[in-house]
Amino acid sequence: LIEIKAPYVLFLGDVPDVSFAKTAFGIVEWRPEHCCGQIRLPGNNLRVDLPDVTVEEAVAKGARTLIIGVANVGGYIAPQWLPVLKAALAAGLDLAAGLHNKLSDVPELAALAKQHGRLIHDIRQPRTGFPVGTGLKRSGKRVLAVGTDCAVGKKYAALALAKELSNRGVPNDFRATGQTGIFIAGQGVAVDAVISDFIAGAAETISPANDPNHWDVIEGQGSLFHPGYAGVALGLLHGSQPDGLVLCHEVGRKTIEGKPTFPVPSLELCAEMNLASARLTNHNVKLVGVSLNTSSLSEDEARAYMADVEKRMGVPATDPIRFGMQNIADYLLAECAAD
Amino acid sequence: LIEIKAPYVLFLGDVPDVSFAKTAFGIVEWRPEHCCGQIRLPGNNLRVDLPDVTVEEAVAKGARTLIIGVANVGGYIAPQWLPVLKAALAAGLDLAAGLHNKLSDVPELAALAKQHGRLIHDIRQPRTGFPVGTGLKRSGKRVLAVGTDCAVGKKYAALALAKELSNRGVPNDFRATGQTGIFIAGQGVAVDAVISDFIAGAAETISPANDPNHWDVIEGQGSLFHPGYAGVALGLLHGSQPDGLVLCHEVGRKTIEGKPTFPVPSLELCAEMNLASARLTNHNVKLVGVSLNTSSLSEDEARAYMADVEKRMGVPATDPIRFGMQNIADYLLAECAAD
Repeated sequence: LIEIKAPYVLFLGDVPDVSFAKTAFGIVEWRPEHCCGQIRLPGNNLRVDLPDVTVEEAVAKGARTLIIGVANVGGYIAPQWLPVLKAALAAGLDLAAGLHNKLSDVPELAALAKQHGRLIHDIRQPRTGFPVGTGLKRSGKRVLAVGTDCAVGKKYAALALAKELSNRGVPNDFRATGQTGIFIAGQGVAVDAVISDFIAGAAETISPANDPNHWDVIEGQGSLFHPGYAGVALGLLHGSQPDGLVLCHEVGRKTIEGKPTFPVPSLELCAEMNLASARLTNHNVKLVGVSLNTSSLSEDEARAYMADVEKRMGVPATDPIRFGMQNIADYLLAECAAD
Repeated sequence: LIEIKAPYVLFLGDVPDVSFAKTAFGIVEWRPEHCCGQIRLPGNNLRVDLPDVTVEEAVAKGARTLIIGVANVGGYIAPQWLPVLKAALAAGLDLAAGLHNKLSDVPELAALAKQHGRLIHDIRQPRTGFPVGTGLKRSGKRVLAVGTDCAVGKKYAALALAKELSNRGVPNDFRATGQTGIFIAGQGVAVDAVISDFIAGAAETISPANDPNHWDVIEGQGSLFHPGYAGVALGLLHGSQPDGLVLCHEVGRKTIEGKPTFPVPSLELCAEMNLASARLTNHNVKLVGVSLNTSSLSEDEARAYMADVEKRMGVPATDPIRFGMQNIADYLLAECAAD
């Protein structure tokens, strides 16, 4: 597993567009205590609610890792970023990024990291060394966020549920399976970068055996209904062996993102397919809630929508941003008690 | 796509065990016309119905590629193999293998290949460069072998069906997705070595758009009911967009290979799950036959078993080794006519 040392300093480079800075915003929202500042190149007005710092100031504040919190179009390492990245390595920071191109493929960075004994984490690069999934039952409890599509709030739902469990003193870990999640958790595996024979095995590695009352709250990836990513979703589902599934959906989305000929499945069909598949490795799996992105609705409309979903699906529904995760946590703890 | 130049000379090394030579036997069974000889190390009595040749004799017979047709325990490149492999490169042959370790990681082999301008095909190594699956419909017809488990005859069923279609003059290609299949076809992609984000995209690449009356007969991998490999099976199913599914099963197998706590699914459940999943990318997908390994039964028992399966499933059943693929080819061509 990748392990990334906090505190972090977030590098925003010369990317001014909020929508390319999801990683930085996600880290600041969920782990503000791990962030000691942001570094921007001159003229970039993007900010993520952190103080501007220099590399030297970040080190003085205790930073251990510089994370590239933005993606430019194409996911490459811009030449104008290199002076800051080199200064960070020289000052004793590790580097971490989830770009398509590898930081460690830039000869100057690789040489500096070696010279200064620093690590470079290229977290979306192909990963090997995982076992084939065994399907053998592990101790501990697990809940996985699944979705009607990609980008419907699976990571947010998992983080919000983990936080709610922590608020109640229930031992738990958020288990990260994607780039931003890994920076938030400080560890994890980008499952979409694993060799396909080992997806389920990687998922087993991400949530190892644990105390019987401990919950792993696992970030989902993809969707069984996405024509490109369903294999990842299924391997993650099997390897996670979830006791509970939280079904995530964006209200109003009609077709799979970027796939106008693929309808988003009904909640019923999506739940049924995920449960049928999940039973292979955990016969007792249950749907424990529906997590909705209701941002297209007024609050009254959202409440009405949730009430309808609860009636149809027989489990609690919420929008975690608006209404929290209390109801799903209640249901999860009541329905999936430790064996 | 990997493309391997025939004719082949098959290297059996010092591996005497038939069960570790499945690749060599598969190539000789399905493509004897591509094989010009076998090379064994002294003392190895294994043989695959090819004349013994030296590297020089193989070259004189027109060989273009030396294929390592055996696997030793651990899948490594034994030091005692190197003299023959080096002689092959020096004599102008390419090398191909599907071992866990890479031939191209052996410095002497890599250097010799470069020096002589030869290719080294390490076909099970992680593959990148595929697109994400689009799910967009392609022209041409496709049939995919799926299974209740791994190693139930999916490759054999696909090869036998392709041969039967060829016998009838139906334009078709066998599309290889695993090691032995790739050596038989001379091209293909080991889908289990693809980065998981791109499984479906790799499957789309393997069976590209074709003439409306052309059939791709696609080798399946894994099983939706295998706790380690289901993700590969699902991505291949989605990317293949099959019009027809041939369901493969070994009579008498009760549990998933190497997984004594995982029952082999019923034919009904396995067909239902594969059809439900396949509909995502091809609404018109149909089950077109059941291909059985009946080697544990007498011929009379096998005929009775097949009759029962046909009654239960409503499609033709056969054991392709005993009874050929005529009935499934008839049904496929009648039920999945070109649009």
